[in-house]
Formats: sequence, C-alpha cells, structure tokens
Amino acid sequence: MKIVSARNVESQRLPADWVHGAAWSDELMKQSGEGAIRLVRVTFEPGARTAWHTHPRGQILHVLAGTCRVQEWGGEVVEFGAGDTVHTAPGVKHWHGASPAGVTVHLAVQQSDGEKDIEWLETVSDAPPAGG
Amino acid sequence: MKIVSARNVESQRLPADWVHGAAWSDELMKQSGEGAIRLVRVTFEPGARTAWHTHPRGQILHVLAGTCRVQEWGGEVVEFGAGDTVHTAPGVKHWHGASPAGVTVHLAVQQSDGEKDIEWLETVSDAPPAGG
Repeated sequence: MKIVSARNVESQRLPADWVHGAAWSDELMKQSGEGAIRLVRVTFEPGARTAWHTHPRGQILHVLAGTCRVQEWGGEVVEFGAGDTVHTAPGVKHWHGASPAGVTVHLAVQQSDGEKDIEWLETVSDAPPAGG
Repeated sequence: MKIVSARNVESQRLPADWVHGAAWSDELMKQSGEGAIRLVRVTFEPGARTAWHTHPRGQILHVLAGTCRVQEWGGEVVEFGAGDTVHTAPGVKHWHGASPAGVTVHLAVQQSDGEKDIEWLETVSDAPPAGG
C-alpha cells in the first residue's frame, strides 16, 4: 500500500509559464511507467487559469469547490461546478482554471505515455486580470 | 469534451454481495478500452465496508470525508482521513470502507485491463455491525 498523507503534501505554486494568476498544485499520487496514473489537486485564485496544454492520454477533471472554467481550442468557455466531471481527449489543446469570482479547486487524473502526462504550450494571452 | 454533470449522477446502492452495510456508488467518468480510467465516488454508512476484491491495474483511493479504513489481505486495518490518498497495487486483495463512527466518502480511480477494472471475491465475514 502506498500512502500519501494529507499532512505531508507540499503545495507547489505553478510557474508563470504554466498559469496566468496564482495556482497551487498538490501531488496526491504519482505512479511511474507507461499508462501510469497521476492524481493532483489544483487550487486556483479567482480568475487564474492554466496556459494552453495537451495531455497525451487525456485528462479527467473533477471539481471540488468553486466554478471551474474549461476551454478547448476553438471552442467556447464552459463552466462547471462542484461535483461535475470533465474528460478532455488525448492531444486536445485546452486550458482550465477558476471563474473570475471565486477560488476553484479541482482534482485532475491523467496518465503518462511513458515519458510525460502533459505538454505545455503557449500562455493564455486574453486572460482577464484576477477578479476582473 | 465529455461532461458528467453532478446533477445527472444517479447513485447506485451496492449489492449485498459487494458490501457489508450500505454504500452508494456515483459513477463520475468511465472510459472504455484497455487502460481506460474509471472514476467513482463511494459513500459508506458508518461501519460499511466492501467485500474483498482486487483490481487488475490497481486502485487509487482519495478520501473526501470521514475516516476510511483499508485492509490488505494479511495486513492490518489502516485508517485514513480526508485528503489522504492510498494506492493498492494490481492484484492485491483488499477491502475498504468507513470507520464504525462516521459516514465516509472516497473517490476511487481504477483502470480497466480491457475487460474489467475490479474482481469481487468473498465478503468480509468478520465485519462489525454498522456503528458497532
């Protein structure tokens, strides 16, 4: 049994290349190898959102608190609330984050292709200021 | 984008062959195919616990509320609280559920081997009565 105790999780602030605004990532479980699952919890300040990115094996987001925004490349911004779950298919360019009004927390489940579970692309240039 | 809205999730009470006591499973996301991820949230009444079972690709539990108990075959009962995360390796026989004192909610992440993501075994014969 591999255990990651809540009291031992060290929140990592995401670098500016990966997020517009402040967001913290808590790594809850990470396996290694091809197909391995990584489980992380991400907390966004109001209005914060990730850069565009893809996941080689796709990603499941499950919202724990707040109002999560997700946009796929070429699509509309969609909002989700606590208890909602979203799957983005492998290779689909997207971003996610918090609505301008409130702190948002989601879990993310993603699989490694043997080398990585995410590929970062350009930052979101049209992001509104936090709280704006 | 595949979306499972919280308001559309229908809780399924687990059958008596799979759980001692009352537990409800909310399917949040299910992909198909080999290596596909299934995300479910399970709510246990106090003292409820699953039958013994294995997962062909292992399982990650993440506790959302209450005190979760997990036991691997031949091991001690271990307790986890909200925010704790536990990985059980592929093929390892185990059960999980709630402490006798309180309702427990956990998320479970498990992968399919192409046919199934779980194999049910015998019921937990020494389970205390709910609340006992």
